[in-house]
Amino acid sequence: MTSIHRIEDGVTGGLTPEEFKAAFRQHPSGIAVITADAGQGPAAMTASSVFSVSVEPPVLVFSISEMSSAAPTLLSAETLVIHMLTAENLDLAILASTSGVDRFADTTIWDRLPSGEPYYTAAHAWVRGRVVDQMQIGNSTVVAVHALESNIPDDAAQTQPLVYHNRTWHKLGESSKI
Amino acid sequence: MTSIHRIEDGVTGGLTPEEFKAAFRQHPSGIAVITADAGQGPAAMTASSVFSVSVEPPVLVFSISEMSSAAPTLLSAETLVIHMLTAENLDLAILASTSGVDRFADTTIWDRLPSGEPYYTAAHAWVRGRVVDQMQIGNSTVVAVHALESNIPDDAAQTQPLVYHNRTWHKLGESSKI
Repeated sequence: MTSIHRIEDGVTGGLTPEEFKAAFRQHPSGIAVITADAGQGPAAMTASSVFSVSVEPPVLVFSISEMSSAAPTLLSAETLVIHMLTAENLDLAILASTSGVDRFADTTIWDRLPSGEPYYTAAHAWVRGRVVDQMQIGNSTVVAVHALESNIPDDAAQTQPLVYHNRTWHKLGESSKI
Repeated sequence: MTSIHRIEDGVTGGLTPEEFKAAFRQHPSGIAVITADAGQGPAAMTASSVFSVSVEPPVLVFSISEMSSAAPTLLSAETLVIHMLTAENLDLAILASTSGVDRFADTTIWDRLPSGEPYYTAAHAWVRGRVVDQMQIGNSTVVAVHALESNIPDDAAQTQPLVYHNRTWHKLGESSKI
Protein backbone atom coordinates (compact mmCIF):
# COMPACT_ATOMS: atom_id res chain seq x y z
CA MET A 1 0.00 0.00 0.00
CA THR A 2 1.27 3.47 -0.76
CA SER A 3 -0.17 5.74 1.90
CA ILE A 4 -3.42 6.88 3.37
CA HIS A 5 -4.89 9.93 1.71
CA ARG A 6 -7.04 12.04 3.98
CA ILE A 7 -9.58 14.55 2.76
CA GLU A 8 -9.04 18.12 3.92
CA ASP A 9 -10.59 18.96 7.27
CA GLY A 10 -12.29 22.03 5.82
CA VAL A 11 -15.17 20.09 4.25
CA THR A 12 -18.17 21.30 6.22
CA GLY A 13 -21.77 22.12 5.40
CA GLY A 14 -23.61 20.91 2.36
CA LEU A 15 -26.51 18.47 2.42
CA THR A 16 -27.82 17.25 5.75
CA PRO A 17 -27.52 13.50 6.45
CA GLU A 18 -31.26 13.16 5.74
CA GLU A 19 -31.00 14.97 2.39
CA PHE A 20 -27.96 12.97 1.35
CA LYS A 21 -29.56 9.63 2.27
CA ALA A 22 -32.69 10.63 0.31
CA ALA A 23 -30.54 11.25 -2.76
CA PHE A 24 -28.91 7.82 -2.58
CA ARG A 25 -32.23 6.08 -2.03
CA GLN A 26 -32.70 7.00 -5.73
CA HIS A 27 -29.53 5.20 -6.75
CA PRO A 28 -29.55 1.37 -6.94
CA SER A 29 -26.42 -0.77 -6.67
CA GLY A 30 -25.10 -4.27 -7.11
CA ILE A 31 -24.22 -6.13 -3.93
CA ALA A 32 -20.91 -7.63 -2.87
CA VAL A 33 -19.66 -9.32 0.27
CA ILE A 34 -16.04 -8.59 1.14
CA THR A 35 -14.00 -10.93 3.33
CA ALA A 36 -10.49 -10.89 4.76
CA ASP A 37 -8.36 -12.11 7.64
CA ALA A 38 -5.60 -9.83 8.84
CA GLY A 39 -4.41 -12.34 11.43
CA GLN A 40 -7.20 -11.92 13.99
CA GLY A 41 -9.72 -14.23 12.33
CA PRO A 42 -12.08 -13.83 9.39
CA ALA A 43 -14.30 -10.77 8.89
CA ALA A 44 -17.03 -10.07 6.34
CA MET A 45 -19.05 -7.05 5.24
CA THR A 46 -21.87 -6.54 2.73
CA ALA A 47 -21.08 -3.61 0.41
CA SER A 48 -23.21 -1.67 -2.05
CA SER A 49 -20.18 0.34 -3.09
CA VAL A 50 -18.03 -1.81 -5.36
CA PHE A 51 -17.06 -0.60 -8.81
CA SER A 52 -14.39 -1.15 -11.44
CA VAL A 53 -12.03 1.81 -11.83
CA SER A 54 -9.36 0.66 -14.24
CA VAL A 55 -8.99 -2.35 -16.54
CA GLU A 56 -5.22 -1.98 -17.00
CA PRO A 57 -4.13 -2.32 -14.25
CA PRO A 58 -7.25 -4.20 -13.07
CA VAL A 59 -8.35 -2.14 -10.05
CA LEU A 60 -11.68 -1.92 -8.23
CA VAL A 61 -12.71 0.22 -5.29
CA PHE A 62 -15.15 -0.10 -2.41
CA SER A 63 -15.91 2.02 0.60
CA ILE A 64 -16.10 1.05 4.24
CA SER A 65 -17.38 2.94 7.25
CA GLU A 66 -15.57 2.90 10.58
CA MET A 67 -18.96 1.86 12.00
CA SER A 68 -18.70 -1.56 10.34
CA SER A 69 -17.64 -4.35 12.67
CA ALA A 70 -15.42 -5.62 9.84
CA ALA A 71 -13.57 -2.31 9.47
CA PRO A 72 -10.53 -3.09 11.66
CA THR A 73 -9.84 -6.26 9.64
CA LEU A 74 -10.73 -4.98 6.16
CA LEU A 75 -8.70 -1.79 6.62
CA SER A 76 -5.58 -3.63 7.78
CA ALA A 77 -5.71 -6.70 5.52
CA GLU A 78 -3.21 -6.87 2.65
CA THR A 79 -5.51 -9.03 0.51
CA LEU A 80 -9.30 -9.35 0.28
CA VAL A 81 -11.97 -11.39 -1.50
CA ILE A 82 -14.83 -9.49 -3.18
CA HIS A 83 -17.86 -11.75 -3.83
CA MET A 84 -20.39 -10.65 -6.47
CA LEU A 85 -23.84 -11.86 -5.39
CA THR A 86 -26.88 -13.13 -7.21
CA ALA A 87 -30.43 -13.36 -5.87
CA GLU A 88 -29.66 -16.92 -4.71
CA ASN A 89 -26.96 -15.41 -2.47
CA LEU A 90 -29.39 -13.13 -0.59
CA ASP A 91 -28.72 -15.09 2.62
CA LEU A 92 -25.03 -14.14 2.40
CA ALA A 93 -25.88 -10.46 1.86
CA ILE A 94 -28.10 -10.52 4.94
CA LEU A 95 -25.60 -12.50 7.04
CA ALA A 96 -22.75 -10.08 6.31
CA SER A 97 -24.89 -7.01 7.04
CA THR A 98 -26.49 -8.19 10.29
CA SER A 99 -25.05 -6.74 13.49
CA GLY A 100 -24.10 -8.90 16.43
CA VAL A 101 -23.88 -12.25 14.67
CA ASP A 102 -20.80 -14.38 14.06
CA ARG A 103 -20.59 -14.26 10.27
CA PHE A 104 -18.37 -17.36 10.23
CA ALA A 105 -20.14 -19.49 12.86
CA ASP A 106 -21.49 -21.88 10.21
CA THR A 107 -18.30 -23.54 9.06
CA THR A 108 -20.09 -25.32 6.22
CA ILE A 109 -20.57 -22.12 4.20
CA TRP A 110 -17.00 -20.84 4.03
CA ASP A 111 -13.51 -22.08 3.39
CA ARG A 112 -10.06 -20.63 2.80
CA LEU A 113 -8.40 -20.07 -0.55
CA PRO A 114 -4.95 -21.66 -1.07
CA SER A 115 -3.60 -18.13 -0.46
CA GLY A 116 -5.31 -18.08 2.95
CA GLU A 117 -8.24 -15.64 2.60
CA PRO A 118 -11.65 -16.73 3.93
CA TYR A 119 -14.43 -16.88 1.32
CA TYR A 120 -18.04 -17.99 1.06
CA THR A 121 -18.17 -21.03 -1.21
CA ALA A 122 -21.76 -20.47 -2.42
CA ALA A 123 -21.09 -16.98 -3.75
CA HIS A 124 -21.75 -16.75 -7.45
CA ALA A 125 -18.42 -15.16 -8.36
CA TRP A 126 -15.43 -13.67 -6.62
CA VAL A 127 -12.27 -11.65 -7.17
CA ARG A 128 -9.22 -11.84 -4.89
CA GLY A 129 -7.06 -8.75 -4.75
CA ARG A 130 -4.37 -6.77 -2.98
CA VAL A 131 -5.05 -3.39 -1.36
CA VAL A 132 -3.03 -0.74 -3.21
CA ASP A 133 -4.44 2.55 -1.96
CA GLN A 134 -6.84 4.14 0.51
CA MET A 135 -8.60 7.51 0.48
CA GLN A 136 -10.11 8.55 3.82
CA ILE A 137 -13.24 10.70 3.85
CA GLY A 138 -14.87 11.56 7.15
CA ASN A 139 -15.40 8.28 9.00
CA SER A 140 -15.20 6.24 5.79
CA THR A 141 -12.40 4.97 3.59
CA VAL A 142 -12.36 4.26 -0.14
CA VAL A 143 -10.12 1.21 -0.67
CA ALA A 144 -8.49 0.49 -4.04
CA VAL A 145 -7.84 -3.21 -4.77
CA HIS A 146 -5.62 -4.68 -7.49
CA ALA A 147 -7.42 -7.79 -8.83
CA LEU A 148 -5.10 -10.81 -8.77
CA GLU A 149 -7.35 -13.83 -9.21
CA SER A 150 -11.00 -14.53 -9.99
CA ASN A 151 -13.60 -17.27 -10.08
CA ILE A 152 -16.22 -16.16 -12.60
CA PRO A 153 -18.83 -18.55 -14.05
CA ASP A 154 -19.22 -18.28 -17.79
CA ASP A 155 -22.95 -17.57 -17.60
CA ALA A 156 -23.48 -13.87 -16.86
CA ALA A 157 -26.47 -13.83 -19.19
CA GLN A 158 -28.25 -16.56 -17.22
CA THR A 159 -27.79 -15.22 -13.70
CA GLN A 160 -30.12 -13.02 -11.66
CA PRO A 161 -27.87 -10.53 -9.91
CA LEU A 162 -28.83 -9.02 -6.60
CA VAL A 163 -29.57 -5.28 -6.47
CA TYR A 164 -30.35 -3.01 -3.52
CA HIS A 165 -32.55 0.06 -3.92
CA ASN A 166 -34.49 2.22 -1.46
CA ARG A 167 -34.05 -0.30 1.37
CA THR A 168 -35.43 -3.14 -0.79
CA TRP A 169 -33.76 -6.17 -2.42
CA HIS A 170 -34.32 -6.73 -6.14
CA LYS A 171 -33.17 -9.26 -8.70
CA LEU A 172 -32.49 -8.65 -12.37
CA GLY A 173 -33.77 -11.00 -15.05
CA GLU A 174 -35.69 -11.21 -18.30
CA SER A 175 -38.65 -9.30 -16.83
CA SER A 176 -36.52 -6.33 -15.73
CA LYS A 177 -34.91 -5.84 -19.15
CA ILE A 178 -35.78 -2.65 -21.01
CA MET B 1 -9.26 20.38 -4.02
CA THR B 2 -6.46 19.02 -1.89
CA SER B 3 -4.10 17.20 -4.21
CA ILE B 4 -3.98 14.41 -6.72
CA HIS B 5 -3.14 11.04 -5.27
CA ARG B 6 -1.47 8.66 -7.69
CA ILE B 7 -1.32 4.90 -7.24
CA GLU B 8 2.16 3.39 -7.09
CA ASP B 9 3.69 2.56 -10.46
CA GLY B 10 4.54 -0.94 -9.25
CA VAL B 11 1.02 -2.34 -9.78
CA THR B 12 1.52 -4.84 -12.59
CA GLY B 13 0.13 -8.27 -13.41
CA GLY B 14 -3.08 -9.67 -11.99
CA LEU B 15 -6.20 -10.35 -14.03
CA THR B 16 -6.12 -9.76 -17.76
CA PRO B 17 -8.47 -7.08 -19.13
CA GLU B 18 -10.76 -9.86 -20.40
CA GLU B 19 -10.88 -11.60 -17.01
CA PHE B 20 -11.50 -8.34 -15.18
CA LYS B 21 -14.30 -7.29 -17.54
CA ALA B 22 -15.90 -10.73 -17.15
CA ALA B 23 -15.92 -10.25 -13.38
CA PHE B 24 -17.68 -6.89 -13.60
CA ARG B 25 -20.24 -8.18 -16.06
CA GLN B 26 -21.52 -10.02 -12.95
CA HIS B 27 -21.94 -6.78 -11.02
CA PRO B 28 -24.90 -4.50 -11.83
CA SER B 29 -24.96 -0.77 -11.11
CA GLY B 30 -27.20 2.24 -10.97
CA ILE B 31 -26.69 4.83 -13.68
CA ALA B 32 -25.83 8.50 -13.35
CA VAL B 33 -25.03 11.26 -15.82
CA ILE B 34 -22.42 13.74 -14.63
CA THR B 35 -22.21 17.25 -16.09
CA ALA B 36 -19.91 20.23 -15.61
CA ASP B 37 -18.48 23.27 -17.33
CA ALA B 38 -14.92 24.26 -16.46
CA GLY B 39 -15.04 27.33 -18.70
CA GLN B 40 -14.78 25.61 -22.09
CA GLY B 41 -18.46 24.73 -22.45
CA PRO B 42 -20.63 21.97 -21.00
CA ALA B 43 -19.57 18.31 -20.88
CA ALA B 44 -21.51 15.19 -19.87
CA MET B 45 -20.68 11.56 -19.15
CA THR B 46 -22.76 8.50 -18.27
CA ALA B 47 -21.32 6.74 -15.21
CA SER B 48 -21.98 3.34 -13.66
CA SER B 49 -19.59 4.12 -10.84
CA VAL B 50 -21.31 6.50 -8.42
CA PHE B 51 -21.61 5.64 -4.74
CA SER B 52 -22.07 7.33 -1.42
CA VAL B 53 -18.97 7.19 0.78
CA SER B 54 -19.78 9.32 3.80
CA VAL B 55 -22.95 10.87 5.18
CA GLU B 56 -21.18 13.36 7.45
CA PRO B 57 -19.64 15.07 5.57
CA PRO B 58 -21.91 14.16 2.63
CA VAL B 59 -19.41 12.83 0.08
CA LEU B 60 -19.89 10.63 -3.00
CA VAL B 61 -17.35 9.28 -5.46
CA PHE B 62 -17.33 8.35 -9.12
CA SER B 63 -14.63 7.22 -11.50
CA ILE B 64 -13.71 8.58 -14.90
CA SER B 65 -11.43 7.21 -17.60
CA GLU B 66 -9.05 9.42 -19.55
CA MET B 67 -10.69 7.86 -22.62
CA SER B 68 -13.95 9.73 -21.93
CA SER B 69 -14.45 12.83 -24.08
CA ALA B 70 -15.75 14.56 -20.94
CA ALA B 71 -12.59 13.82 -18.94
CA PRO B 72 -10.76 17.13 -19.52
CA THR B 73 -13.79 19.07 -18.28
CA LEU B 74 -14.90 16.77 -15.44
CA LEU B 75 -11.36 16.46 -14.08
CA SER B 76 -10.76 20.21 -14.02
CA ALA B 77 -14.20 21.45 -12.94
CA GLU B 78 -14.57 22.72 -9.38
CA THR B 79 -18.25 21.78 -9.20
CA LEU B 80 -20.34 19.07 -10.89
CA VAL B 81 -23.92 17.86 -11.17
CA ILE B 82 -24.61 14.13 -10.64
CA HIS B 83 -27.98 13.08 -12.10
CA MET B 84 -29.58 9.84 -10.81
CA LEU B 85 -31.52 8.27 -13.67
CA THR B 86 -34.75 6.30 -13.90
CA ALA B 87 -35.87 4.09 -16.79
CA GLU B 88 -37.65 7.13 -18.27
CA ASN B 89 -34.24 8.81 -18.51
CA LEU B 90 -32.71 6.06 -20.67
CA ASP B 91 -32.37 8.54 -23.55
CA LEU B 92 -30.09 10.69 -21.37
CA ALA B 93 -27.96 7.67 -20.41
CA ILE B 94 -27.53 6.81 -24.09
CA LEU B 95 -26.89 10.41 -25.15
CA ALA B 96 -24.12 10.90 -22.59
CA SER B 97 -22.43 7.60 -23.47
CA THR B 98 -22.49 7.92 -27.26
CA SER B 99 -19.22 8.91 -28.92
CA GLY B 100 -19.02 11.68 -31.46
CA VAL B 101 -22.28 13.45 -30.69
CA ASP B 102 -22.78 16.92 -29.24
CA ARG B 103 -24.40 16.06 -25.91
CA PHE B 104 -25.76 19.62 -25.59
CA ALA B 105 -26.90 20.24 -29.17
CA ASP B 106 -30.58 20.03 -28.18
CA THR B 107 -30.94 23.16 -26.09
CA THR B 108 -34.45 22.20 -24.98
CA ILE B 109 -33.21 19.37 -22.71
CA TRP B 110 -30.70 21.22 -20.56
CA ASP B 111 -30.36 24.47 -18.66
CA ARG B 112 -27.99 26.01 -16.15
CA LEU B 113 -28.41 26.09 -12.39
CA PRO B 114 -28.28 29.51 -10.70
CA SER B 115 -24.72 28.53 -9.70
CA GLY B 116 -23.82 28.05 -13.38
CA GLU B 117 -23.49 24.29 -13.89
CA PRO B 118 -25.21 22.72 -16.92
CA TYR B 119 -27.86 20.08 -16.07
CA TYR B 120 -30.46 17.97 -17.85
CA THR B 121 -33.87 19.16 -16.75
CA ALA B 122 -35.66 15.82 -17.31
CA ALA B 123 -33.36 13.85 -15.01
CA HIS B 124 -35.26 12.31 -12.13
CA ALA B 125 -32.97 13.61 -9.38
CA TRP B 126 -29.66 15.38 -9.05
CA VAL B 127 -26.97 16.39 -6.58
CA ARG B 128 -24.65 19.37 -7.10
CA GLY B 129 -21.28 19.15 -5.41
CA ARG B 130 -17.71 20.39 -5.15
CA VAL B 131 -14.70 18.22 -5.99
CA VAL B 132 -12.69 17.67 -2.81
CA ASP B 133 -10.25 14.90 -3.74
CA GLN B 134 -8.97 12.74 -6.57
CA MET B 135 -7.23 9.34 -6.56
CA GLN B 136 -5.56 8.40 -9.85
CA ILE B 137 -5.34 4.72 -10.83
CA GLY B 138 -3.86 3.80 -14.20
CA ASN B 139 -5.69 5.87 -16.79
CA SER B 140 -8.67 6.46 -14.50
CA THR B 141 -9.39 8.79 -11.62
CA VAL B 142 -11.69 8.35 -8.63
CA VAL B 143 -13.22 11.76 -7.87
CA ALA B 144 -14.64 12.60 -4.42
CA VAL B 145 -17.47 15.16 -4.41
CA HIS B 146 -18.87 17.05 -1.42
CA ALA B 147 -22.66 17.27 -1.91
CA LEU B 148 -23.85 20.87 -1.60
CA GLU B 149 -27.35 20.93 -3.05
CA SER B 150 -29.90 18.42 -4.31
CA ASN B 151 -33.18 18.11 -6.15
CA ILE B 152 -34.73 14.85 -5.00
CA PRO B 153 -38.40 14.00 -5.62
CA ASP B 154 -40.20 12.60 -2.61
CA ASP B 155 -41.26 9.41 -4.39
CA ALA B 156 -38.36 6.93 -4.34
CA ALA B 157 -40.80 4.06 -3.78
CA GLN B 158 -42.72 4.88 -6.97
CA THR B 159 -39.83 5.29 -9.39
CA GLN B 160 -38.25 2.70 -11.68
CA PRO B 161 -34.51 3.31 -11.46
CA LEU B 162 -32.24 2.47 -14.34
CA VAL B 163 -29.70 -0.34 -13.87
CA TYR B 164 -26.92 -1.58 -16.18
CA HIS B 165 -25.82 -5.22 -16.14
CA ASN B 166 -23.89 -7.39 -18.59
CA ARG B 167 -24.24 -4.80 -21.39
CA THR B 168 -28.04 -4.63 -20.94
CA TRP B 169 -30.33 -1.94 -19.51
CA HIS B 170 -32.79 -2.94 -16.79
CA LYS B 171 -35.39 -1.16 -14.70
CA LEU B 172 -36.37 -1.92 -11.13
CA GLY B 173 -40.00 -2.12 -10.06
CA GLU B 174 -42.59 -4.24 -8.30
CA SER B 175 -41.79 -7.26 -10.49
CA SER B 176 -38.07 -7.21 -9.66
CA LYS B 177 -38.58 -7.13 -5.87
CA ILE B 178 -37.48 -10.19 -3.91
